[in-house]
Amino acid sequence: MNTFGNIFRLTSFGESHGEAVGGVIDGCPPGIEMDMKFIQSELDRRRPGQSRITTSRKESDTVNFLSGIFEGKTTGTPIGFIVRNENPHSSDYENLKDVFRPSHADFTYQQKYGIRDYRGGGRSSARETITRVVAGAIAKLYLKKLNIVFTAYTSQVGGIMLDKDYTEYDFSLIESTPVRCPDPEKAWQMIDLIQEVRAKGDTIGGVVSCVIKGVPVGLGEPVYGKLHAALGAAMLSINAVKGFEYGDGFDVNHRGSEVNDVFFNDNGRITTRTNHSGGIQGGISNGQDIYFRVAFKPVATILMEQQTVDIEGNETIIKARGRHDPCVVPRAVPIVEAMAAITIMDYYLLSKAK
Amino acid sequence: MNTFGNIFRLTSFGESHGEAVGGVIDGCPPGIEMDMKFIQSELDRRRPGQSRITTSRKESDTVNFLSGIFEGKTTGTPIGFIVRNENPHSSDYENLKDVFRPSHADFTYQQKYGIRDYRGGGRSSARETITRVVAGAIAKLYLKKLNIVFTAYTSQVGGIMLDKDYTEYDFSLIESTPVRCPDPEKAWQMIDLIQEVRAKGDTIGGVVSCVIKGVPVGLGEPVYGKLHAALGAAMLSINAVKGFEYGDGFDVNHRGSEVNDVFFNDNGRITTRTNHSGGIQGGISNGQDIYFRVAFKPVATILMEQQTVDIEGNETIIKARGRHDPCVVPRAVPIVEAMAAITIMDYYLLSKAK
Amino acid sequence: MNTFGNIFRLTSFGESHGEAVGGVIDGCPPGIEMDMKFIQSELDRRRPGQSRITTSRKESDTVNFLSGIFEGKTTGTPIGFIVRNENPHSSDYENLKDVFRPSHADFTYQQKYGIRDYRGGGRSSARETITRVVAGAIAKLYLKKLNIVFTAYTSQVGGIMLDKDYTEYDFSLIESTPVRCPDPEKAWQMIDLIQEVRAKGDTIGGVVSCVIKGVPVGLGEPVYGKLHAALGAAMLSINAVKGFEYGDGFDVNHRGSEVNDVFFNDNGRITTRTNHSGGIQGGISNGQDIYFRVAFKPVATILMEQQTVDIEGNETIIKARGRHDPCVVPRAVPIVEAMAAITIMDYYLLSKAK
Amino acid sequence: MNTFGNIFRLTSFGESHGEAVGGVIDGCPPGIEMDMKFIQSELDRRRPGQSRITTSRKESDTVNFLSGIFEGKTTGTPIGFIVRNENPHSSDYENLKDVFRPSHADFTYQQKYGIRDYRGGGRSSARETITRVVAGAIAKLYLKKLNIVFTAYTSQVGGIMLDKDYTEYDFSLIESTPVRCPDPEKAWQMIDLIQEVRAKGDTIGGVVSCVIKGVPVGLGEPVYGKLHAALGAAMLSINAVKGFEYGDGFDVNHRGSEVNDVFFNDNGRITTRTNHSGGIQGGISNGQDIYFRVAFKPVATILMEQQTVDIEGNETIIKARGRHDPCVVPRAVPIVEAMAAITIMDYYLLSKAK
Repeated sequence: MNTFGNIFRLTSFGESHGEAVGGVIDGCPPGIEMDMKFIQSELDRRRPGQSRITTSRKESDTVNFLSGIFEGKTTGTPIGFIVRNENPHSSDYENLKDVFRPSHADFTYQQKYGIRDYRGGGRSSARETITRVVAGAIAKLYLKKLNIVFTAYTSQVGGIMLDKDYTEYDFSLIESTPVRCPDPEKAWQMIDLIQEVRAKGDTIGGVVSCVIKGVPVGLGEPVYGKLHAALGAAMLSINAVKGFEYGDGFDVNHRGSEVNDVFFNDNGRITTRTNHSGGIQGGISNGQDIYFRVAFKPVATILMEQQTVDIEGNETIIKARGRHDPCVVPRAVPIVEAMAAITIMDYYLLSKAK
Repeated sequence: MNTFGNIFRLTSFGESHGEAVGGVIDGCPPGIEMDMKFIQSELDRRRPGQSRITTSRKESDTVNFLSGIFEGKTTGTPIGFIVRNENPHSSDYENLKDVFRPSHADFTYQQKYGIRDYRGGGRSSARETITRVVAGAIAKLYLKKLNIVFTAYTSQVGGIMLDKDYTEYDFSLIESTPVRCPDPEKAWQMIDLIQEVRAKGDTIGGVVSCVIKGVPVGLGEPVYGKLHAALGAAMLSINAVKGFEYGDGFDVNHRGSEVNDVFFNDNGRITTRTNHSGGIQGGISNGQDIYFRVAFKPVATILMEQQTVDIEGNETIIKARGRHDPCVVPRAVPIVEAMAAITIMDYYLLSKAK
Repeated sequence: MNTFGNIFRLTSFGESHGEAVGGVIDGCPPGIEMDMKFIQSELDRRRPGQSRITTSRKESDTVNFLSGIFEGKTTGTPIGFIVRNENPHSSDYENLKDVFRPSHADFTYQQKYGIRDYRGGGRSSARETITRVVAGAIAKLYLKKLNIVFTAYTSQVGGIMLDKDYTEYDFSLIESTPVRCPDPEKAWQMIDLIQEVRAKGDTIGGVVSCVIKGVPVGLGEPVYGKLHAALGAAMLSINAVKGFEYGDGFDVNHRGSEVNDVFFNDNGRITTRTNHSGGIQGGISNGQDIYFRVAFKPVATILMEQQTVDIEGNETIIKARGRHDPCVVPRAVPIVEAMAAITIMDYYLLSKAK
Repeated sequence: MNTFGNIFRLTSFGESHGEAVGGVIDGCPPGIEMDMKFIQSELDRRRPGQSRITTSRKESDTVNFLSGIFEGKTTGTPIGFIVRNENPHSSDYENLKDVFRPSHADFTYQQKYGIRDYRGGGRSSARETITRVVAGAIAKLYLKKLNIVFTAYTSQVGGIMLDKDYTEYDFSLIESTPVRCPDPEKAWQMIDLIQEVRAKGDTIGGVVSCVIKGVPVGLGEPVYGKLHAALGAAMLSINAVKGFEYGDGFDVNHRGSEVNDVFFNDNGRITTRTNHSGGIQGGISNGQDIYFRVAFKPVATILMEQQTVDIEGNETIIKARGRHDPCVVPRAVPIVEAMAAITIMDYYLLSKAK
């Protein structure tokens, strides 16, 4: 269950404070030119310490490919890779060894496995998502040639949210602020809010939106492998995610006559005038933009005193030390894109197997 | 991709107007006493024609088990079953043969496969969900012995929505109205709204909420098989679903300090004082109630004229005939429960394999 | 585990004396013209009662397709089908209810599941292979268009065995004798032997050989999905199979210099002068004929007295009644072909997913 | 397809002359004490350069675990590991860059992927089996506590073969000769033969037998996951394997009355007097010893001139350089054990999921 995908498959391993995190990408088509600069730039978007509003853990997050590449190209054999953990500060966690942090996975891992690596959250740490960004970057390299492009951005932090349709934003502005929101004014409000929250040792939730352009008609495997079910599972596997919706999502107070996407003939190409469906009908892509939204809870680690219980059931008080994100959303943007790219890659390859 | 699950696996087949729909349940533990009355009662909750606010298609939806059962008990071998389609009215669809209904899967199936059974939506019809209700009923029979209980209900139709926490409702009222909402006053408002919408030939969306009580600590397979990711994929595979959230979900405008679920020792059992997490932490059940919400779009089939395009790209007008649900939500309640039961059953069995 | 295949997947169900056996074929490409006559003719080759040297159980083995086919063609949706059990004679098994037949699965099923359908061997009966023949026939219909052809034949019964290379036999003679051996003289010796064995109430083992012509270069997924590993698993899943070898197989007393298959340029096509490899190198088809051999033990059911133990551990004597094959090999020929066709179909589709 | 197993899963990566080979073991139960000395000793049994009759490539084959272990025990999270390639001598392969070695995977990889790492056989090299030995060693550590023990040995090299039943050999003698044959006299004949063959630059085939003691009744998942089918697929995935048989295997010239395994009550335990079945009935272990045999072809790399074709189709002569095994069988013994242990581990865990 540490494998994601059917044909294009990522298997990941690694704990936050172990020697390395890494993975194996299986089913990758041969002949992809490995643009190492691009792959590293994707990792840099996820990297801790990249701005004032993220954790200050210092990691270069340099990926080391061990197999599956020959003379700069993928060979079709599995791509093994590792990223070393360089700056763990495990001593920050000594006091958490026998205590369950509220809303963390400490308790459930301990109960399920009877043993856990408590340092930095161990396997439940979002550090694992490095491996997804690596696999996602390779998927993007392949899909770029098919003109399939992934764009995620922060659409909500706390109560500050974008209120316009995604088509009204200039995506080139996303990376211009550390919060990765395409509306500059809202972006700075979000940043201020995050800093205010951080100053109190607290954290805050948010939403990432994602748009995939260029997906051809026909991806998706009904009935249990519907494209949006696969995207949903991908997103829900990301740390701190609490919800997924695509197209109109939870905005259900509409009549069918209002939100049905009427077909028309657009110079020989059949498409829809509106896109309430979010680019997917019956679980299969219809050629329109795919868009969806992903909800993230506030990071559970707060630098405030909290009541809890230790491994023996004694009630106690904990206060986390160390370096943590006050809001996961800015760094989650490249992770959402990566999981979207892995999923579309997988379904693109699946769609050829017929 | 017509198979759901890892250990407890449902493979389904069948089109809306074919001879039968059916399935195979593999990995079912031996020795389950098949309570046929219960299984049929679950099918009756999903059945068309059960009330004024559902489609009037007449189907007895009687399940015929063909294997895997001996002297009234499951044997551990695959359970094959069929449910005959008795009342298809295929002629209602003759005029839709070469036309793509807006927001239906007609277009995407045609493009993906180059051929489709247009009668009643073919494979994309929600008639397939019969098979899920059968498998879900068997899962419920097994899990009932472990005191795991599934309760779904309608929490929103159009703009009418429940506004209290699920713990404040009396679940025994759910089945007392045809809309399956535990608040009788809101229930009748919902029913009125559905009838008003139906009178216009239109349809409307809604939300189903689900609560699972009694799940033991430890179900869930991080990192890609998180329990909520599996539940999300299960729900998103149901026809017309557009979103899934668990715990606080998209309600992200909170501080970590407000929504962290603090642990305490409840007479020897470690549990949490609040349940913003929705019963799952780090992808693993924590022993609290699991709860989630599922968004359903308005049914795409409306009995009104709509613009569209035919298979050759000519623009045209269609108007659906026949018998359709004005709102899918009341009949979706047992389907949501069934998919939840299948998922929990699967993860319960998986959790033993260590 | 009642599912075989990755992309082209057969899920089967059914017991020997239940209402029906059946299955679901998922991942079948759309647009295959269903030649029902051909499919039934394949079933007829497997059918009991087809000749003097098979069991006399009377079954028409008529397949009833329930889904996945529209206007005579596959639609890409799952193909559900059933074959009714018409002539079970369950009373023949009453005396075996609480007794374990030697070298049968009675004991292991009872121990594993704690319950079993003892009638006719229940799920462990070779009657399940009907479903494989159906799926195999559909695979053959698809692969025939790619000029991939499957030919299995009996190469050994007891001590009577073919001693020449498969290229020296006229395959058109295979179906001319009930034993399905292409050497008419040996065929009649085999038939005589089977009849002699049957007269004593005894049974005898044998070998089926199989040749697949026309497989393109490139099928196979190293390292754990090697084509011959998939073929081996397919064959070893057939009832009564005890061994699988391909190419030179167990004939290992050779030097590398003798048995290496030297490449040459055959008018522009690179191929090998010899075929000790059996058409597969490094787990991937090389364009040569694929050939392999499958060993079948004597049928365990003999009409003689045998010592055994009952369910309570008491030693006892049993003597089977009823209708049984004295040698499984003649009826296994179409089953071997079917499993080969399913496997090649699956790997052909997999090879396109890159 | 670089993943093996259902619950206990090995995903491997790495080429012969890349930076490292490695893998991820997922689904490993928590709490296994990692006996590093034992694991390394298993790798040493497979290591090149261990004796006069193996290749002289110098590799320490030291395994570096990167995750999944905490304070000396497995944690239930994925175990990532790498083994560096220290002594590749890639220049030995420069002359093979554009040429297809007879009976190697060069041609098929080139045709399938359009690109290949030609150095040392790349991905098709048996160097990948290091990862299996690591996973197998961990499986053995777990299964040893259940008294399940794996013993493989060389039973044939060229024409020299053991002629007695496995029960008649003293397994403690296996590791006393470099050829790993429990009959000392035959062992030295085999060694002489291998040395004679090597002196000529040639290679020779052989057979490895394997016995698994202590497997409880009930492992195996009929009908497509029969235990022997899983073992067969495991063995056939090993480099150079051409055949698999269990129990009586290809020795089919027997009557059912001779080879049926009669049950008796052995002081309260039901078991069989003979074991022609090889410990498996109906695909499920019956508590008897499981035994099987695996055929290995002569190593394809010979140090003699061979005719072949280059990548452009020109006929040419090649002569391999470098360090190669004259007979793969002695080093295959621990690999056969490893794959058997991985398979039994996987099926043991699967058997608990019900």
